[in-house]
Amino acid sequence: MKIGIIGGGGVGQAIAAKLIANGHDVHLGIRNPSKEELAKDRMMAKPLIDWVRDTGGKVVTFAEAAKHGEIVFAATNGATAIDALKLAGAENLKGKVLIDISNPLDFSKGMPPALLPQYDHFTSLGEETQKAFPEARVVKAFNTVSASAMVDASFVPGDHDLFIAGNDVEAKKTVENLARKEFGWKSFVDLGDIVGARATEHLLPLWVRLWMIGGTPKVNIKLVKG
Amino acid sequence: MKIGIIGGGGVGQAIAAKLIANGHDVHLGIRNPSKEELAKDRMMAKPLIDWVRDTGGKVVTFAEAAKHGEIVFAATNGATAIDALKLAGAENLKGKVLIDISNPLDFSKGMPPALLPQYDHFTSLGEETQKAFPEARVVKAFNTVSASAMVDASFVPGDHDLFIAGNDVEAKKTVENLARKEFGWKSFVDLGDIVGARATEHLLPLWVRLWMIGGTPKVNIKLVKG
Repeated sequence: MKIGIIGGGGVGQAIAAKLIANGHDVHLGIRNPSKEELAKDRMMAKPLIDWVRDTGGKVVTFAEAAKHGEIVFAATNGATAIDALKLAGAENLKGKVLIDISNPLDFSKGMPPALLPQYDHFTSLGEETQKAFPEARVVKAFNTVSASAMVDASFVPGDHDLFIAGNDVEAKKTVENLARKEFGWKSFVDLGDIVGARATEHLLPLWVRLWMIGGTPKVNIKLVKG
Repeated sequence: MKIGIIGGGGVGQAIAAKLIANGHDVHLGIRNPSKEELAKDRMMAKPLIDWVRDTGGKVVTFAEAAKHGEIVFAATNGATAIDALKLAGAENLKGKVLIDISNPLDFSKGMPPALLPQYDHFTSLGEETQKAFPEARVVKAFNTVSASAMVDASFVPGDHDLFIAGNDVEAKKTVENLARKEFGWKSFVDLGDIVGARATEHLLPLWVRLWMIGGTPKVNIKLVKG
């Protein structure tokens, strides 16, 4: 399948690498895919020149990646997520499943981050993304676990959940099937329409806290209900 | 044991009723324990006059309840929580374990609530409570489940967690023992100092969402880690 990834940080690299390894035709988009940019250190990830060497992957512009993908992943940092998608172009996202992994984290006071106020109070980054790109089929998913767990659910041993939210039921089913087949996820919690993104984005303070205190990103949660 | 409850809504009533049934000497504090006030309908709970009839419990002022308790529960709504504790009196809370169950929910736009901005961005109600009452031993706990589950963990069948945060290790141990003995809780996640309250208060959007979508308050989560 042709897949476009918006964002060349740790999450974008991990998702793209896994899908390439699984045989898909993946284009990884960044703002400016120049030689100098590819050689730069990237936060919590390797320089893209090394990623290209290791994966055989292709780094292109945001717009080229979005145009290429039948499915598109939004995997930039939350603060610039919608700007990056604007550069990707609404016309290149139209009618496509857009998997929003971005978290609206505010690192302005260091660790732990808060949620960015503009995506927090009575809204979410998932909702604002759907509003900004009404013809994309936005599905919020994968944003509640580490990049290693996103692409391999067994990174966290045992039974735990992937939370999914979005307005388009078929698009959610596509994401669930992809998560199951490509990344080994087995348990899903459907949080309804894209307003459910508030719930998963608000999980980040717990997730970061558990990581800081427990010393391992091998954490997730399991829904228990009666 | 002598226990004081600050707040006569559904949560305060449930906690007080259970502890009375377990043989404790409990005083339930409200802002103004007049005859008229006791006869009033209370949001998501019965009039206190009925609660007194059913439990044999005693309704007093915030200050009287705080003074009475060796352990004090803060169980008002989040918006007025610190004001209610000011009425309870810092001198009546000094040196005591103060269990903060309140959630800083903003219902100004109806359901689902957001978090109150003043307790959200780089802080939490738990932290602000500890700052306002530096001599109280604040423990954030019980705020991530329904009142029915707070006082009887088996209300949600299966294995699931009670999240606890606070600066005072002994105080947290007291709360864990109380939760175990009085309310049947078996699994605990210690989120470290009171900054951990951010994580649990941010769980409310998920919790409310699960309730709205699943149609049952019989929900909680279980931490899964490697």
